[in-house]
Amino acid sequence: MPRLYDYLDSGNGYKVRLILAQTQQPYRFTELDIDKGETRTPQFLAKNPNGRIPTLELDDGTFLAESDAILWYLAENTPFIPADRLGRAQCLQWMFFEQYSHEPYVATPRYIVRHLPKDSPRQAELPDRLKRGRDALGVMESHLKSRSFFVGERYSIADIALYAYTHVAPQGGLDLAPYPSVLAWLGRVAAQPRHVPITWRPPE
Amino acid sequence: MPRLYDYLDSGNGYKVRLILAQTQQPYRFTELDIDKGETRTPQFLAKNPNGRIPTLELDDGTFLAESDAILWYLAENTPFIPADRLGRAQCLQWMFFEQYSHEPYVATPRYIVRHLPKDSPRQAELPDRLKRGRDALGVMESHLKSRSFFVGERYSIADIALYAYTHVAPQGGLDLAPYPSVLAWLGRVAAQPRHVPITWRPPE
Repeated sequence: MPRLYDYLDSGNGYKVRLILAQTQQPYRFTELDIDKGETRTPQFLAKNPNGRIPTLELDDGTFLAESDAILWYLAENTPFIPADRLGRAQCLQWMFFEQYSHEPYVATPRYIVRHLPKDSPRQAELPDRLKRGRDALGVMESHLKSRSFFVGERYSIADIALYAYTHVAPQGGLDLAPYPSVLAWLGRVAAQPRHVPITWRPPE
Repeated sequence: MPRLYDYLDSGNGYKVRLILAQTQQPYRFTELDIDKGETRTPQFLAKNPNGRIPTLELDDGTFLAESDAILWYLAENTPFIPADRLGRAQCLQWMFFEQYSHEPYVATPRYIVRHLPKDSPRQAELPDRLKRGRDALGVMESHLKSRSFFVGERYSIADIALYAYTHVAPQGGLDLAPYPSVLAWLGRVAAQPRHVPITWRPPE
C-alpha cells in the first residue's frame, strides 16, 4: 500500500489527499512538520533529494515527488484526466500554470503570513507576490467566465491542482470577491462527490 | 499546420523547437520580441491570456501554452515519453521540478544578465537566485551520478525540459564545473539524433 509523506497545512499535499479520497485508493499517511525542518533531515532527503512534501512511496519502494506529477500518476485511466490528447495537454497546461504563475504568488504569501515570524525579512516580499497573485486570479477569472471547469467542461486534476491554494488564498491576503467566476467554480469543486477539506487528516 | 509563437533566446521556446525537430513535425514559426513587449499586446493576450511564449496554435485554432505541456502534446505516443505509468509520472516529476525549482533560479539569472539594464533593481535578486540554482544543479548531479538520462535510462522530454536552460546556465553566472555528471549528461543530450542548438531559427 502506498505511503504519503505530507504536511496537513500544505495545499500541495492536499491535492494528493483529495485525489486519493475521490478515487478511493487506500494508503498510509506520515505527517512531517516543515516548520521543524522534518523534510530536510538526511533520512527524508534520502527519499526526496529536493526535500519537499508531498512525496509518495510506492509499493516497490520508489519515491515519487512533485504534487502535480503524483496527481497524474494516481489519476491515469480514471475520469479525472481527460480522455483526449488535447484535453490531456490542456490539463497539464493549467497544472504548469499553477506551479509557475500561481503557487509562488497565491500559496507563498499564505505561507509567509501563517508560518513566518511577523518580523521576518520575507514579509517584504508580500506586496509584489500579492500583485502577481491577482494577475494569476485574473487569468483564471477570464478563463472561467464562460466555463464550468478548467478543461472540457468536466472536473479534472487541473481543477484539483488550482483549487488547492485558491480556496485558501484569503488566508494569505488575497480577496476573492473581485473574481466571481472563480468563486462560483470553487463552489462547484467543493460540491464534487467525496470532496474532503484541506484540514482532513487520513488515518495513519 | 501548427504555428509556434516563440522568442529565439528563450529556453522554454527552445524545448518546443527541439522536440519538433526531433520528431520531424512540420510547423510555422512567428517570433515575438519579449524585450519589446510583443507578448503583452492585446492581440497576443487574446491568444494566451498569461502573455507568454512559447504558445502553439493548433490546426483547429486552439492555443496551447506552457512549454512542458506543449512538449507532452507533441511527444505523446512517441519514444520521447516513457511507455509505462511510473515512467510517465517520473517524467512529469522532473518537468515540474524544472518549472518550480530550476527555471526561476537557473533561467531567470540569465534573463536578468542578458536582458535587463546593468542598473536594474532586479540585479539585486541574483545572489539568492544563483544559490537556489546551485541547489537545483546539486539535485540533478546526485540523480545523474548513477544514470545516463533522467528517466528509465532513455532520452525523454524530461531531458529536453532540463537541458534547455541548464546548458546555457553559465550565461547567467552559474559555473557547471562542480557538476561533472550534469556535464556528461549535457554531452549525451547534445549527441542525440536531430539535435538543434538553442540559436536555431526554423523557417517562417
